[in-house]
Amino acid sequence: MILAIDSSQSSGSIALKSGDRVVYSANFDIKITHSETLMPAIDHAITFCGAAKKDLEAVYICNGPGSFTGLRIGLATAKGIAFGLNIPLYAFSSLQLCALPATGLGKNILGCIDAKMKEVYFALYSTDFQELIAPQVISPAELAKLDMGEFILCGSASPIMEPLLTASGAKFYPMNALLQIPNAAGLFMLGEFFPAQNTPRNIADLEPLYLRESTAQIRSKNQA
Amino acid sequence: MILAIDSSQSSGSIALKSGDRVVYSANFDIKITHSETLMPAIDHAITFCGAAKKDLEAVYICNGPGSFTGLRIGLATAKGIAFGLNIPLYAFSSLQLCALPATGLGKNILGCIDAKMKEVYFALYSTDFQELIAPQVISPAELAKLDMGEFILCGSASPIMEPLLTASGAKFYPMNALLQIPNAAGLFMLGEFFPAQNTPRNIADLEPLYLRESTAQIRSKNQA
Repeated sequence: MILAIDSSQSSGSIALKSGDRVVYSANFDIKITHSETLMPAIDHAITFCGAAKKDLEAVYICNGPGSFTGLRIGLATAKGIAFGLNIPLYAFSSLQLCALPATGLGKNILGCIDAKMKEVYFALYSTDFQELIAPQVISPAELAKLDMGEFILCGSASPIMEPLLTASGAKFYPMNALLQIPNAAGLFMLGEFFPAQNTPRNIADLEPLYLRESTAQIRSKNQA
Repeated sequence: MILAIDSSQSSGSIALKSGDRVVYSANFDIKITHSETLMPAIDHAITFCGAAKKDLEAVYICNGPGSFTGLRIGLATAKGIAFGLNIPLYAFSSLQLCALPATGLGKNILGCIDAKMKEVYFALYSTDFQELIAPQVISPAELAKLDMGEFILCGSASPIMEPLLTASGAKFYPMNALLQIPNAAGLFMLGEFFPAQNTPRNIADLEPLYLRESTAQIRSKNQA
């Protein structure tokens, strides 16, 4: 059984896969910190499925970009479980995760996540999930100016981007709002889509993918 | 807080909405009957969200088409909760639920659900979710012959339909397999998409939408 965790955004998600089947997935957005929800949610999921901790064979984690604190909590939880049970840890991108539902539909895919501080994280993919623009952080106004062809708009920053893209005359289709809720079960599919990425990560060295420095780091530098 | 339940297929799902936000959703496919999973899952979800039964204001149920037993269990559970708490019950179609993620992407949508016995339930929708072909039950081979324009293929019968549609030369795009897992949170959106359907149902009279008779009913008639 494989455990997947995504706490890169305000809505957290966990999932369990047994054999080739997703047997459980849950999403929660209950305005308390991931550090209070993740472990109880994981514990419940394993018990609900009639399994035990010892049945876990690997942990998949979404390592960003996204919320600084959310990523730290998710990564710490995933590392702890992988370390404790002596099982491998795999890491995948939150931008790939949010773009995944729109693959195979014949259009490019803009995955974008609210980075706060008037910025968004984004990447552009082709319909067969090739990276056309690599992950980066940008202002919504700058992003709306890029030529991205005809594309499907995905991810938590969609409500921010939609009016700007409409104003810029972009040819795009917003993905149904239901799919803006992250689903950790997608991490299992990313492992199949990107075999090259699908290698165990060193538990000690694995860092969140931030794409920019945290507010605390910037403030600290400015004071130095 | 509103509770949504979908047990119309082998993978069950529940969701909770508070205000305008989906605060919790879960999917489970653990090969034991919905009668053993639904109530514990609902109980856990309410507690996990720091709420109580008395906070429930309405129940949304997916009333088919789908598994005969699954629908009976889901409907009985939903009716029991609505009756017990004296709150309204709303019912929506499983075909609308599976087609929902593909709305707004500029193509027709074929929602299809495995009806077993070598048949599928299906309906065809436009990109803005107008019904182009009303829900019916049909053989996969007959369905593959229909002229449905350019469409996105959704629902649990997608793996059955994909090779037949390819062979018939249909112009279609299969929705990502991740989205073939039913998500009860979609029921909240169906209520917004279809205000005319969004009326409380009479708890005593609400019947599952079967589209055909059960094996037991057919057998009983043949023996009469």
